[in-house]
Amino acid sequence: MNTRITQLFGIKYPIIQGGMIWCSGWELASAVSNAGGLGLIGSGSMYPDILEEQIKKCKAATDKPFGVNVPLLFPDRKEVFDLLIREKISIVFTSAGNPATWTSYQKEHGITVVHVVASVKSALKCQDSGVDAIVAEGFEAGGHNGKEETTTLTLIPLIRKAVSLPLIAAGGIATGRGMLAAFVLGAEGVQIGTRFVVSEESSAHPEFKRKIIESGDGDTFLAMKKVVPVRLLKNKFLDAVRLMEDQGASAEELKGLLGKGRAKKGMFEGEMEEGELEIGQASALINGIKPAGKIIEEIIHEFNEAKKELNEIR
Amino acid sequence: MNTRITQLFGIKYPIIQGGMIWCSGWELASAVSNAGGLGLIGSGSMYPDILEEQIKKCKAATDKPFGVNVPLLFPDRKEVFDLLIREKISIVFTSAGNPATWTSYQKEHGITVVHVVASVKSALKCQDSGVDAIVAEGFEAGGHNGKEETTTLTLIPLIRKAVSLPLIAAGGIATGRGMLAAFVLGAEGVQIGTRFVVSEESSAHPEFKRKIIESGDGDTFLAMKKVVPVRLLKNKFLDAVRLMEDQGASAEELKGLLGKGRAKKGMFEGEMEEGELEIGQASALINGIKPAGKIIEEIIHEFNEAKKELNEIR
Repeated sequence: MNTRITQLFGIKYPIIQGGMIWCSGWELASAVSNAGGLGLIGSGSMYPDILEEQIKKCKAATDKPFGVNVPLLFPDRKEVFDLLIREKISIVFTSAGNPATWTSYQKEHGITVVHVVASVKSALKCQDSGVDAIVAEGFEAGGHNGKEETTTLTLIPLIRKAVSLPLIAAGGIATGRGMLAAFVLGAEGVQIGTRFVVSEESSAHPEFKRKIIESGDGDTFLAMKKVVPVRLLKNKFLDAVRLMEDQGASAEELKGLLGKGRAKKGMFEGEMEEGELEIGQASALINGIKPAGKIIEEIIHEFNEAKKELNEIR
Repeated sequence: MNTRITQLFGIKYPIIQGGMIWCSGWELASAVSNAGGLGLIGSGSMYPDILEEQIKKCKAATDKPFGVNVPLLFPDRKEVFDLLIREKISIVFTSAGNPATWTSYQKEHGITVVHVVASVKSALKCQDSGVDAIVAEGFEAGGHNGKEETTTLTLIPLIRKAVSLPLIAAGGIATGRGMLAAFVLGAEGVQIGTRFVVSEESSAHPEFKRKIIESGDGDTFLAMKKVVPVRLLKNKFLDAVRLMEDQGASAEELKGLLGKGRAKKGMFEGEMEEGELEIGQASALINGIKPAGKIIEEIIHEFNEAKKELNEIR
């Protein structure tokens, strides 16, 4: 395939594997890159020494391009960016923050910068900040999410119209049909998270993968809106959050309930009821654990088949 | 065009104009039907005598098929269905209720019944109840909405897989590209609400139309979840609802704030700050008031152009 996204990264297919906490280390990122997509190491759950180790292992496992996702809401970002520069990482996806803060520093060091947005306003800010491409992520996406609650179906054409940057769609996309729908709306690539959480190479706990496969529609919910909106899989912890929210709990009270280490507990250590399980609505579309390379193959096959079928609509 | 939806209703284009309170009387419904789509009279805001008058006027204005939308959450449904039977209405869209309650009564009188759902569970119930086709409506839709918050992008493929009934996609669709994306996901027709609210023939107040045209992404919000979830355009009233909800207000307190006649006040009488303004996220995509026939023409043109463009993706 040939779009501005394949050209920008020098990859075969315009499929980005979302950088996700506790799920996307070097094994997943290198598998995706080796299969022709763009793998991202999710640095959000890694201390700098772990991240350095993950980058070195990823380099050893693939000679294809890969990148690192850096959530901007955590502290010590300078340390992380300097590590990426030292390791000669050439592709960085930033999220959960203002693109104006770190883009020029990265550009000075020759990094291709992609920023994740959930609104037209943020997309315009990306353009002003010199970002190279945008991920536009809808309400259905897993993990941290925008306050506007705009869905992928509405967001992609709005951002397509507002900015001229290469555009990657995210949120609710797990299949070739989803990818083709995103292209119809104006995207030139897709970022897929949830489906890769359930890949063989993902470091998500096997119990978490199993729970995703069993889930259906309505089994995720966007909660914690007074803190940072986050889409979670339903369990005892989410029930407790929703009950508190229904009763008007403050941001401080919700932070207290969340405590520390809860995402690790759920997604990495397999505590299915007390852990925080970040996942997208696309979890309802997923039926089995497969190698990342096979997932990419299936998505591209379905994308091409669905494109052919459209020609039969009269 | 030729899909199971055009065949079911005997229409030229598989575009349904959603039956909406205070916006879709005989003028809009007949204009849509005359242009080759399926117009629906929105009975939710009409007493039986008004509905009867609207039906008679619609019959006089078009010899094409049209239908009536009946929200099941209101009282006196028997009176309404008996009126529709007397008036020989052959297409009814039911919504906001259980399809098992009224489908067989309508089928006994030869009515083609379509039911609006927001979950796989409700779609399966439709199949069991003998419904003829389904509208699957995502989180981004205006007005009443499902508790599951599943977006159109995720919902359509899930329902396509779960049931074999003819499938109409709704929520976030306002353009030919949106329609094509829905078809990629497995829909055979689309129901469009928001864009027709801003048609010349819509009975929405001109101030409401103006406010929709001015709106951008993030300007609607799904509120009143403890009562019945409803997507509204931001104004003073919605701000007040959200403040109460943030503070943990009960369903009773929210109903008290809502009071009576607030939707009429906003959508029909043009009180932009104190009225309830039901509209979908697609409002951000709409830039002008046009005749309904022109809207359909533009959607079909864009659908065909976008289909052609896809063949250029390599």
